[in-house]
Amino acid sequence: MLISFEGIDGCGKSTQISMLEEWCARKEIPAAVFREPGGTVLSEKIRDLLLDGRREMNPVTELLLFSAARSQLISEQVKPLLDAGRWVILDRFYDSTTAYQGFGRRSADLKEIDALNRLAAHNLEPDFTFYLKIGVEEASKRTSGREKDRMESSGEEFYRRVIRGFDQLSSRFPRFVTLDATQSPEAIHTQITTLLQEKPG
Amino acid sequence: MLISFEGIDGCGKSTQISMLEEWCARKEIPAAVFREPGGTVLSEKIRDLLLDGRREMNPVTELLLFSAARSQLISEQVKPLLDAGRWVILDRFYDSTTAYQGFGRRSADLKEIDALNRLAAHNLEPDFTFYLKIGVEEASKRTSGREKDRMESSGEEFYRRVIRGFDQLSSRFPRFVTLDATQSPEAIHTQITTLLQEKPG
Repeated sequence: MLISFEGIDGCGKSTQISMLEEWCARKEIPAAVFREPGGTVLSEKIRDLLLDGRREMNPVTELLLFSAARSQLISEQVKPLLDAGRWVILDRFYDSTTAYQGFGRRSADLKEIDALNRLAAHNLEPDFTFYLKIGVEEASKRTSGREKDRMESSGEEFYRRVIRGFDQLSSRFPRFVTLDATQSPEAIHTQITTLLQEKPG
Repeated sequence: MLISFEGIDGCGKSTQISMLEEWCARKEIPAAVFREPGGTVLSEKIRDLLLDGRREMNPVTELLLFSAARSQLISEQVKPLLDAGRWVILDRFYDSTTAYQGFGRRSADLKEIDALNRLAAHNLEPDFTFYLKIGVEEASKRTSGREKDRMESSGEEFYRRVIRGFDQLSSRFPRFVTLDATQSPEAIHTQITTLLQEKPG
C-alpha cells in the first residue's frame, strides 16, 4: 500500500502521519515514512544542492533536481519496500510538484510537469492520496515562525493558486481523498483508517 | 548563433571544435565553448554527483540530473551569451541525450526524452547541429585507451543503436548537417565554415 499526504503548510500533515504510523505499529503493519527530497544517500546530496544553490537556481533546474531525487527514492527505497509487502507513507509526493511548481510558481506547463512526474515516479501511483484541505488564513494562523514568514513572503495569492492546484488534482484522480483539515486530528484520523481498512486486498 | 556538435566518441568532434574556435578568433567572432555536464558552479556540482554515484544510480535519475545541469547551463550562460550577440558552440547537446539515453540505453520513452529535452533547454534550438558520422569499427580504431575500453564494454550493438538515433534525428530536423567524418579534418572544417558563412543574418 502506497499512501501520500498532501496539502499546504499548516494543514496538519505531520500530525496525521504520526497518528497513522502509530496505528500501523498497533496493527503490526510494517510501514516506512519518507519526506522528499531525501531518503537515499544520493537524494540527500541533491537536497543539499537544492538548499545551497537556491538563490541562483533557475525554476526549471529546481524542478529537475526535485524529480531526480524522487526518481532515486522510488527506485532505491519505495519500490523494493512495496515489493516486500511493506506500506510506504509519503509526506508529499508528485502532486505537490504539480500544485507548487505548476500552479503556484508556474515553472513549467502542467503537461510538462505531468510527464516529468510520471517519469520520476517510474509510473508508480499512490493507492490513496489524503489531501488535507484548509484555507490560507486558517493555515497561516496555525503555522508560526519560519513557516509563517515563508507563507507571508510568498503571498496569499500564491497559496490560493496552490490550493486550486490540489483541488483540480483531487477532482481528476479517484485516488484523492479530500478531508476537511479544520476538523479535530482524531476525527480526521478515524476517516483515514476507516478507508484504509475498507480497501480490498 | 548556437552551434552543436554531435557524434559517437572518435568521430573527431574535439578537433572540429578547436578548428572552429580558431576560425572564429581569426574572424573576430566572440565565441564560447561548453561541454556538458558543466559550465556553471551548480552544473559542476551535479557533474560530481553523476561521476560519483553512478554505480547505484537509476538510469532515470541520471537522465534527470543531466537535464538539471543542462537547464542551469542554458539559463545562466548560453542564453545570456546569445542575447549579448556571442556565438555559443556546444560539444554535445540534447541530441546526445536522445541518441545515448533514448536509443542506446533505452532509459525512457523517446517521447518522454523529447519533452524533457525541450524543458531542460528552455525551448532553445541550435541553428546548426553538425553531426560527424562514422561507423563503429572506424571510430573504435581511432579511439584509444579509456575511450576504447568504454566502447568495447558497452558493446558494438549499443553504438549501432546510438548511430541509428543520430541518423533519425538528422532526418527529422533541418538544423542537422550530416558530415562524413572519414574525410580529412580540413575538408570537414571547410564544409562547416562554408555553411556558417552562407547563413543569413
